Amino acid sequence: MKAPCGVITLTTDFGLEDSYVGTMKGVILGIFPAARIIDITHQVNPQDTLEASLILENAYPYFPDGTIHVAVVDPGVGTSRRPIVVVTPDHVFVGPDNGTFTRIFEAHEIEAVHEISNEEFMLANVSHTFHGRDVFAPAAAHLAIGRRPEDFGAVVRDPRQSEIPVPRMYPDQICGEVIYIDNFGNVITNISRRQFDATVGSHGMRIRINGKQIDVVHRTYQDTEPGSALALFGSNDLLEIAVAGGRADRRIGAGKGDTVIVDVLGEAGRPPRETGFDY
Amino acid sequence: MKAPCGVITLTTDFGLEDSYVGTMKGVILGIFPAARIIDITHQVNPQDTLEASLILENAYPYFPDGTIHVAVVDPGVGTSRRPIVVVTPDHVFVGPDNGTFTRIFEAHEIEAVHEISNEEFMLANVSHTFHGRDVFAPAAAHLAIGRRPEDFGAVVRDPRQSEIPVPRMYPDQICGEVIYIDNFGNVITNISRRQFDATVGSHGMRIRINGKQIDVVHRTYQDTEPGSALALFGSNDLLEIAVAGGRADRRIGAGKGDTVIVDVLGEAGRPPRETGFDY
Amino acid sequence: MKAPCGVITLTTDFGLEDSYVGTMKGVILGIFPAARIIDITHQVNPQDTLEASLILENAYPYFPDGTIHVAVVDPGVGTSRRPIVVVTPDHVFVGPDNGTFTRIFEAHEIEAVHEISNEEFMLANVSHTFHGRDVFAPAAAHLAIGRRPEDFGAVVRDPRQSEIPVPRMYPDQICGEVIYIDNFGNVITNISRRQFDATVGSHGMRIRINGKQIDVVHRTYQDTEPGSALALFGSNDLLEIAVAGGRADRRIGAGKGDTVIVDVLGEAGRPPRETGFDY
Repeated sequence: MKAPCGVITLTTDFGLEDSYVGTMKGVILGIFPAARIIDITHQVNPQDTLEASLILENAYPYFPDGTIHVAVVDPGVGTSRRPIVVVTPDHVFVGPDNGTFTRIFEAHEIEAVHEISNEEFMLANVSHTFHGRDVFAPAAAHLAIGRRPEDFGAVVRDPRQSEIPVPRMYPDQICGEVIYIDNFGNVITNISRRQFDATVGSHGMRIRINGKQIDVVHRTYQDTEPGSALALFGSNDLLEIAVAGGRADRRIGAGKGDTVIVDVLGEAGRPPRETGFDY
Repeated sequence: MKAPCGVITLTTDFGLEDSYVGTMKGVILGIFPAARIIDITHQVNPQDTLEASLILENAYPYFPDGTIHVAVVDPGVGTSRRPIVVVTPDHVFVGPDNGTFTRIFEAHEIEAVHEISNEEFMLANVSHTFHGRDVFAPAAAHLAIGRRPEDFGAVVRDPRQSEIPVPRMYPDQICGEVIYIDNFGNVITNISRRQFDATVGSHGMRIRINGKQIDVVHRTYQDTEPGSALALFGSNDLLEIAVAGGRADRRIGAGKGDTVIVDVLGEAGRPPRETGFDY
Repeated sequence: MKAPCGVITLTTDFGLEDSYVGTMKGVILGIFPAARIIDITHQVNPQDTLEASLILENAYPYFPDGTIHVAVVDPGVGTSRRPIVVVTPDHVFVGPDNGTFTRIFEAHEIEAVHEISNEEFMLANVSHTFHGRDVFAPAAAHLAIGRRPEDFGAVVRDPRQSEIPVPRMYPDQICGEVIYIDNFGNVITNISRRQFDATVGSHGMRIRINGKQIDVVHRTYQDTEPGSALALFGSNDLLEIAVAGGRADRRIGAGKGDTVIVDVLGEAGRPPRETGFDY
């Protein structure tokens, strides 16, 4: 665990219309006046802990060592779900134990997970509906001023992990899915560059999604005609479908969960086997 | 009045698409480079000073003593409405004198209210359309560096107060209304836990809104089946209607201003008197 | 060039739903932990560099001298378009060389423009799709800690400038257009107060837009009946059409690019010549 650097990030589904996010920041500044608080996003799809997990995974490695990351997508607030602190070698995560940290658990060595049960680190009156304000914001502030994770509560040995959709890998095919649509309408899949390279190598390939077909992976959004769909590896090294100067999600009618197939092509430029999808 | 702590909050209806909010922050930093500026929200319903008042009331108590709160929902910008500074024992508020601070006046001891008329604390050229930038941001920054409220202008003895919808209280009924819908679609009423407890006590009760009926006040959003409407006291101790895993506003077709009735039930489980509402 | 003051502003079309903006801030804080990062907006119309230019022009003069302004509206990311640093006497601008800084070039003395090619100031692995994170955020942070613009790369002698719609000026008419609709629905034209005064002087005038006509320029949004359209000079001294208590864009069906005519009226209260527009 690195020494705290004074930066606290926030990721929630609270939106920006209400006072919820501002209130959390007020609580943090009351405990740690020098905190530098950074919003990752407050527009996670409501109660979608898997989306929160994905957004957090994309952002947190770019923060300084010793950053405290608070993620509150918390449909079970007030129930028996535990508030937790998750410690990795470089970062600390704070939030409900509901699967939000699944991708952190998968990707990183975990040094410790502690329940937050010590009321010393909570507001005086803890509501049943807003632990972002009453539990998680104060916990983050106390961690940022140097309180140790083990002071917050007992070790948690079985933190909850959600099932993450991973692509099925075959010798001549990858069967993935759409996991995110970004602000530009880019359609982001769960197929990583590493997985793609390992399967496709120097062969030809064909990407199929929603009855559409793309034959080349380009390098930039501008590598085709304006308005054409193209494939590329995005900033997180995941295969994505984009449209130069447009929105790929609308163009190909794609949404989260849609199947994405990468066929490795044989000598004759045809897929080496039948795939069984209705294209 | 507490010494300023360096924190300045912003609450406006400016939205986040334009440069208005960023510009206010630039002005603040030009006067007080060490300001820690926190957004409460910039998505107040346009020109809805009563909503601004409610949002501010929910958020400001969670900020450190000595915070300066700027609230600019200002349909009368450039007219004769006064810019004011409102001083309470722990916080200072800055904005137009148009009812935005009504709930502050109701809830708190007011130490002083001053008009902002001293041009020393304004930008050199004050526009008729953007006092957030030209008057309120500089006033907040000057207050945060220690200028005294009385330096800004004359005492205001009759600050404007809006009429706040308060519930009508009867021995066996509370007749309130919906005052806010939050980002999750939770339907928040003006009936406080204190008012509810004083009237209902240990009796049975029934909540009616838009022809729907709820018989129990639960503790958390998860205390019913997913998709069911439930009542609870939210994070500000106001009675609210929610739907576990859904939006209550859509489910019960509720909007701001809708009537909410709490009937105290007699021995037979029926309301002790006719209420006159068409249910 | 002024010494950096530690403030970095961000203007992008990234939106607030994804982690892109938060990630840029993480990168900045990793290089310059004391940075004070201010959002101007992240809701520029996607890939609209001209709108970014306008928003930036309205906001940046209100920031302290020595502010670094990052603007990333970057449809050509990953192509041969250059990343640049633009130095004016009081501020520094960082972003792609795609016309975003056109209004800066027009309005100000330019001390220097440098390409950003020195990899020392970039992240270790520069993607082809997210230079906001990999190139511009680190460049801004390095500038803010005092690295000199000339260290970033070669002088750029021909930075790209977009064609800005300027009003056509006649002795008795100004022919302008709508360049922006703000969050309140105010319809902002490209006709400045200076241009208006120089042409109209003390004569009568008539403003025409979309078949509607306005005969007076008022001072504040409240100078007419609620619901009436009025003209005034907004906070950036541009002629705008507003509706007291309403949205002018909807009221007059106006959008960006619509023609706005100011006729100077003669003795008889009629326009001094035929204008040729279909009203």
